[in-house]
Amino acid sequence: MNFIESLKNAWVKNNSLLCVGLDPDLKKIPAAIRGKDRAIFEFCTGIVDATADLVCAFKPQIAYFAAQQAEDQLKDLIQYIHSAYPQIPVILDAKRGDIGNTAEQYAVEAFERYQADAVTLSPYMGKDSVEPYLAYPEKGIVLLCRTSNAGGSDLQALEVSINCERMKLYEHVARMIASQWNANGQCMLVAGATYTEEFSSIRRIVGDMPLLVPG
Amino acid sequence: MNFIESLKNAWVKNNSLLCVGLDPDLKKIPAAIRGKDRAIFEFCTGIVDATADLVCAFKPQIAYFAAQQAEDQLKDLIQYIHSAYPQIPVILDAKRGDIGNTAEQYAVEAFERYQADAVTLSPYMGKDSVEPYLAYPEKGIVLLCRTSNAGGSDLQALEVSINCERMKLYEHVARMIASQWNANGQCMLVAGATYTEEFSSIRRIVGDMPLLVPG
Repeated sequence: MNFIESLKNAWVKNNSLLCVGLDPDLKKIPAAIRGKDRAIFEFCTGIVDATADLVCAFKPQIAYFAAQQAEDQLKDLIQYIHSAYPQIPVILDAKRGDIGNTAEQYAVEAFERYQADAVTLSPYMGKDSVEPYLAYPEKGIVLLCRTSNAGGSDLQALEVSINCERMKLYEHVARMIASQWNANGQCMLVAGATYTEEFSSIRRIVGDMPLLVPG
Repeated sequence: MNFIESLKNAWVKNNSLLCVGLDPDLKKIPAAIRGKDRAIFEFCTGIVDATADLVCAFKPQIAYFAAQQAEDQLKDLIQYIHSAYPQIPVILDAKRGDIGNTAEQYAVEAFERYQADAVTLSPYMGKDSVEPYLAYPEKGIVLLCRTSNAGGSDLQALEVSINCERMKLYEHVARMIASQWNANGQCMLVAGATYTEEFSSIRRIVGDMPLLVPG
């Protein structure tokens, strides 16, 4: 079963489209947990246990673990989810974006070291920057398309001209991924829903491709 | 002294514009070193010692360390360079790109955990995605602008329309960074030199901003 299939199974099984992010900012973890040796792991598994029957995916954000030298706790967290809740896929939020041999190493990091089921990526460096991840047929990739932060418009909302047709950059990204990068059905997009007309446009372009909608 | 100043000092001191990448692919490390406990650290410090009087910067690529669970060796490598060759700045090649609190965590990873002097970033999420790094006034950021891989054209070479003026996306990125993101002189750009007219265009836009030219 590949990532998109396991995600769809989780939608049905838990009757949920909710992906719970695991962004363990040590400053915001309750003091009673913060003092412990493996505070991040304990805090996150608490959230996992409390929500596992209500979600379709978990999404740990690697930056919070990396800032705390807590790679071992990230690895253990993902292993814990796989073991306790094998029906819930794990998306590693890492927003990697590099080429060739380097992208291969990042794929090893996400899929072999951490055993994530999917990873978030940036499209800025183009198709060859995502190919090393697509070489894992059972894994998923979740590509930034239209983000709803203030700076999201600096590039993504620009008008571009493709073969004399005008569209927004994020629409071009959605088209390219849907028509060229998703040959094996491994792709999802990050699409903010702040502006409903933009969100509708992405949905029209990508058909029933799953969308990760933050916020 | 901030990053750009220390980079310029290294240009003069070593009469060099060469930045040496440290991409320790374990498969390509000589067998005599590969078998050792800290093979990656040994391999990289060997390169550092052999080239330190010939370069203006070192650039370790974090993916190779992350794939091998060798974060401790990356930290020790950067500490080694700072200690043995304090005049040579270190650029952590990580191509991070995220917003708000998450970007703050990545900045902690690059600048506090690893003590890098600069970090590479993706511009796809816009200005607020780089601000947490700019909050470290002595540090530098190196933003992807025009990359020379095949997929680099998928987004970067698109024609965009800005206030009725037409330009390439990478030219818009260069303008935005030079005119808006570089208020404190902390920015550099990644600009491939495969196509000389593109490279010239970037140089015209950014004036004397340092460019990181791969390859």
